[in-house]
Amino acid sequence: MSSNQQPTINETRLRVRYAETDQMGVVYHSNHLIWFEVGRVELMRQMGLAYRDMEREDGLFIAVAEAKCRYRAPVYYDEEVVVRTRLKTVRQSVIVFGYELVRATTGALLAEGETTHIVTNTEMKTSRLPDKYLSVFCGALGNNGSTRGKS
Amino acid sequence: MSSNQQPTINETRLRVRYAETDQMGVVYHSNHLIWFEVGRVELMRQMGLAYRDMEREDGLFIAVAEAKCRYRAPVYYDEEVVVRTRLKTVRQSVIVFGYELVRATTGALLAEGETTHIVTNTEMKTSRLPDKYLSVFCGALGNNGSTRGKS
Amino acid sequence: MSSNQQPTINETRLRVRYAETDQMGVVYHSNHLIWFEVGRVELMRQMGLAYRDMEREDGLFIAVAEAKCRYRAPVYYDEEVVVRTRLKTVRQSVIVFGYELVRATTGALLAEGETTHIVTNTEMKTSRLPDKYLSVFCGALGNNGSTRGKS
Amino acid sequence: MSSNQQPTINETRLRVRYAETDQMGVVYHSNHLIWFEVGRVELMRQMGLAYRDMEREDGLFIAVAEAKCRYRAPVYYDEEVVVRTRLKTVRQSVIVFGYELVRATTGALLAEGETTHIVTNTEMKTSRLPDKYLSVFCGALGNNGSTRGKS
Repeated sequence: MSSNQQPTINETRLRVRYAETDQMGVVYHSNHLIWFEVGRVELMRQMGLAYRDMEREDGLFIAVAEAKCRYRAPVYYDEEVVVRTRLKTVRQSVIVFGYELVRATTGALLAEGETTHIVTNTEMKTSRLPDKYLSVFCGALGNNGSTRGKS
Repeated sequence: MSSNQQPTINETRLRVRYAETDQMGVVYHSNHLIWFEVGRVELMRQMGLAYRDMEREDGLFIAVAEAKCRYRAPVYYDEEVVVRTRLKTVRQSVIVFGYELVRATTGALLAEGETTHIVTNTEMKTSRLPDKYLSVFCGALGNNGSTRGKS
Repeated sequence: MSSNQQPTINETRLRVRYAETDQMGVVYHSNHLIWFEVGRVELMRQMGLAYRDMEREDGLFIAVAEAKCRYRAPVYYDEEVVVRTRLKTVRQSVIVFGYELVRATTGALLAEGETTHIVTNTEMKTSRLPDKYLSVFCGALGNNGSTRGKS
Repeated sequence: MSSNQQPTINETRLRVRYAETDQMGVVYHSNHLIWFEVGRVELMRQMGLAYRDMEREDGLFIAVAEAKCRYRAPVYYDEEVVVRTRLKTVRQSVIVFGYELVRATTGALLAEGETTHIVTNTEMKTSRLPDKYLSVFCGALGNNGSTRGKS
């Protein structure tokens, strides 16, 4: 029925920095969370939302409540990787994003992850996503979303 | 029966660095994984193992296969935190560590996490933990360990 | 004449984290600036000042205007290093700190650096260090300081 | 006389990551060195050299011996910045790069820096840049270069 049945998926390409490697000769594992955040912000931008403005103008923060990453293959210096980000769940105060990290040249899966976020105000208290944002998030879920804003 | 029924637990104290904060005014969430690594290395040191030497002398790496963190409370600049690390599971090629991050002054829980590691050789291939290490890891599990080296 | 002729010097010990190494097998060079900041904050604490409170209570920031580092020797994973920090210059809006990074076991010089800071208010405008702070900074200069608060 | 009188200049665009900010609400100052490294690698790529391969195939490292940065203006989350990188000096074992960081939208200068590098081999010993690389570096200097390979 809806004109937006497909979930919005963002693909952002990054090149691995030297600073991100460790002495094992591969990317240090905490950097994946930083890349996921880059993907998350770009997905929101693709949805028409500037996270920067949400913070600055509406005093809304999307704080990380939980993060998971499964590391499938080592990531090497100077290679190009793609962060593929999508929404998994949206409720009024909880948003779950899913991520796949793939090698740009081959598409090989390098890592998978998920982050759960709580919407908070400037005092770090749980807050409700205002309707103007909630509708955009729900629209971006498509039909694959496991939950909607007002179930 | 064993004389070593209690699991080995390491407590390492860290002070939050300015570089670890973000513009939300709290510690950026990927730093928790770095602190967990600090705790992990100190737990191993307490067990009598220098991870540095395992890499250098035996060509063994304890690569991260999975990481999870639940963020319970914001962590602030300059406060002292304690990483409490213990072994959860030890098998010949898989080691699971559990973590609690608490505020040093009050003991309040700030985060909980878990990392799963695969033992690898210098070519990043799965390898077996040599007996001299396996026995130390199993000893540190105590009775709370869910798995032992040779089940 | 003064009872405080010696400059205050802080020595803070750090252990190199795995996350701080890169694939060259040594500490990545931007981490030295983070360690210098740790030393700077500890020097101020030794002088009786909590930088955290300066920010929080007085709305004063000591923003970095310039940073320099000369790298004398590679720094390795898991070794203990000492950041030796002292004040070099103090004026009402400008503070210069000097640093030496040495290997804890041998005292070998690993790096030397200097950071120049501008005192700013919450709007990032240059501000004057209030007298209560200025006197403490000048006292910590000792006789080696190249400049004083009120020349 | 030469057909390559202009120095090669690389401009690489980056978007500021949340992880790069600190609680002052601006980019933490050590990140500028990481961005300079990104610019440096891209300048070399533009010159036809893959730094990754220099390390991997020729066992050559361009280790940082000195780094300087002057911070001209705060850099904010999510803004796009351009790292403008050029060679300043090339000798057989020493390479100096210069950097300007500018705001992508306005061209406003945000920071300026310089890094001095020593060519080393896999044992971290000073080494000579092989002729195949030296000629490329000298070509990229243009006429503004203060020094040439064989003076």
